[in-house]
Amino acid sequence: MELKQPYLLFLGDAADSLAAKVAQGIKTWRPEYCVGQLRLEACNADVGLQDLTVAQAKEAGAQTLVIGVANRGGVISKEWISVLIEALEAGMDIAAGLHNKLTDIPELVECAKKNGCALYDVRYPTQTYPVANGKKRSGKRVLTVGTDCSVGKMYTSLAIEKEMKERGVNADFRATGQTGILITGAGVSADCVVADFIAGAIETITPENDPQHWDVIEGQGSLFHASFAGVTTGLIHGSQADALVLCHEPTRTHMRGLPDYQLPDLKVCMEANIATARLTNPAVKFVGVSINTSGLSESDAMAYMDKVESDIGLPVVDPFRQGVARIVDKLLEL
Amino acid sequence: MELKQPYLLFLGDAADSLAAKVAQGIKTWRPEYCVGQLRLEACNADVGLQDLTVAQAKEAGAQTLVIGVANRGGVISKEWISVLIEALEAGMDIAAGLHNKLTDIPELVECAKKNGCALYDVRYPTQTYPVANGKKRSGKRVLTVGTDCSVGKMYTSLAIEKEMKERGVNADFRATGQTGILITGAGVSADCVVADFIAGAIETITPENDPQHWDVIEGQGSLFHASFAGVTTGLIHGSQADALVLCHEPTRTHMRGLPDYQLPDLKVCMEANIATARLTNPAVKFVGVSINTSGLSESDAMAYMDKVESDIGLPVVDPFRQGVARIVDKLLEL
Repeated sequence: MELKQPYLLFLGDAADSLAAKVAQGIKTWRPEYCVGQLRLEACNADVGLQDLTVAQAKEAGAQTLVIGVANRGGVISKEWISVLIEALEAGMDIAAGLHNKLTDIPELVECAKKNGCALYDVRYPTQTYPVANGKKRSGKRVLTVGTDCSVGKMYTSLAIEKEMKERGVNADFRATGQTGILITGAGVSADCVVADFIAGAIETITPENDPQHWDVIEGQGSLFHASFAGVTTGLIHGSQADALVLCHEPTRTHMRGLPDYQLPDLKVCMEANIATARLTNPAVKFVGVSINTSGLSESDAMAYMDKVESDIGLPVVDPFRQGVARIVDKLLEL
Repeated sequence: MELKQPYLLFLGDAADSLAAKVAQGIKTWRPEYCVGQLRLEACNADVGLQDLTVAQAKEAGAQTLVIGVANRGGVISKEWISVLIEALEAGMDIAAGLHNKLTDIPELVECAKKNGCALYDVRYPTQTYPVANGKKRSGKRVLTVGTDCSVGKMYTSLAIEKEMKERGVNADFRATGQTGILITGAGVSADCVVADFIAGAIETITPENDPQHWDVIEGQGSLFHASFAGVTTGLIHGSQADALVLCHEPTRTHMRGLPDYQLPDLKVCMEANIATARLTNPAVKFVGVSINTSGLSESDAMAYMDKVESDIGLPVVDPFRQGVARIVDKLLEL
């Protein structure tokens, strides 16, 4: 699945900026992919792009309308359909990462067919993947892992890719979730693959490469998340990571969605990830810790990160506050 | 998915007895489910049941024809179709655990519909499962785990269930693979579930129960198998096992299908499984080791098991040679 760029970002009737976080992610990490945004009257979000109609976006070269908004329940709202039809009739593909599928809406399927356009439901794999073979392959790989779900693994991975590219390092972010796929136009939604093929899917999207090339692989879930650790395990094994970066959000009071489960201690979490990752790459090492300190004041954030850094002895950064340069320094020493 | 008993076991044109191991498993563990076997002319297998035609089996009360044979590639051979049609026309359901689906053969689908019969492809889940909630539930659970795939986890689990039932313990084998499902008529093929729902599927098939009831859960894969450890991890977390039994085959020279991967040391393997299982049940313990010594002589087998038992300090048995009484003794002490 490879999406065609550039994109028109559809913000729909996003209730607030959080509802448009997919669009914001695309704008932040791939501004060069975006010709503009399209907002309905009720939209309360703005990612800072030019407001365009479908016709104007087409004129500006847009090849794909990306649904950059999530509404309650991941449904595709009736208010959106007329815009989507207009985009298809203008010859654009449509891409979405919602729970409900574009391809389950007969009106869109028919219109896409008539206009020779594609509908991409990036959450759902369209290809079959092989069983992982576990064979060593050339190229270098770094994987983000987490104490919990939604602690900043995608953001950290994209920040590492950006920093590497700015230094002239040959690097590619490898998306393993729907937002990452929409941002970069390729990848696999690891948690939607059939269980037997998780590790095989990750091997497929991080193939053999130049010895100096870096795959920067977006992690999913956590080995300590009772619902999703199977996905995390397969992802770690398929990655054959040379390096791991631990991601953490220090204000969580329990594991996401599991009120009875506490977050793991950072060192315990690192040990478990290393033990798992060693199976397919005995040389794997942690190179740093990425903390999402958005819930802390500047001074509390700095004090917290200082403490973690002296405990762990590796660079500890908040990619949003400080960037990931110190982690990339460590990576390039490998 | 619940299959109707009793069964007519279809051995088809099985090239040898290994090709009919599904039928053999059903005959071994659920003889009371079997009215007889049906063999084509080229069949070289015999599970020791009465040979019946479809009409005779129907007369004897058979409600489901179970395809108890696997041929190369898991395909449904043309030679089989006429027998399957005959069974459907006699009003029987058909169940199979093959890679290729009964429901992909239009001739069978049409005939089943006409006769009001069901086609069960037990490898493929027909229901959706929830995300695991990780909540403690009543009842006791024992899970078999392994150093590798195909080392005797299903056999050991069925032997534990049988021993428990013979002692009057309220116990149920919980199938997590296609053979186990065909044997017992229910379960989930864990490796075919969408990755996000592995642990949730296992929670679903091992629900809250009487405090003294035992679920005996069939394990899958191995934490040390680079292709399938994600399935194993989700299975362990969903099980919330009180007790684990390690299964091992001592003559393996490498992990199944992975020539570059050695088998783990038994103690290392036990530590990794305990560490993983503690997440959802901190009180989890190993209660024994089950060794498949079919590749060893009687004296070598005994010497090997003695050595492992003195190293590990838990009952070590070959369920086939000695039964699992000593492991069940330990379980019932919990």
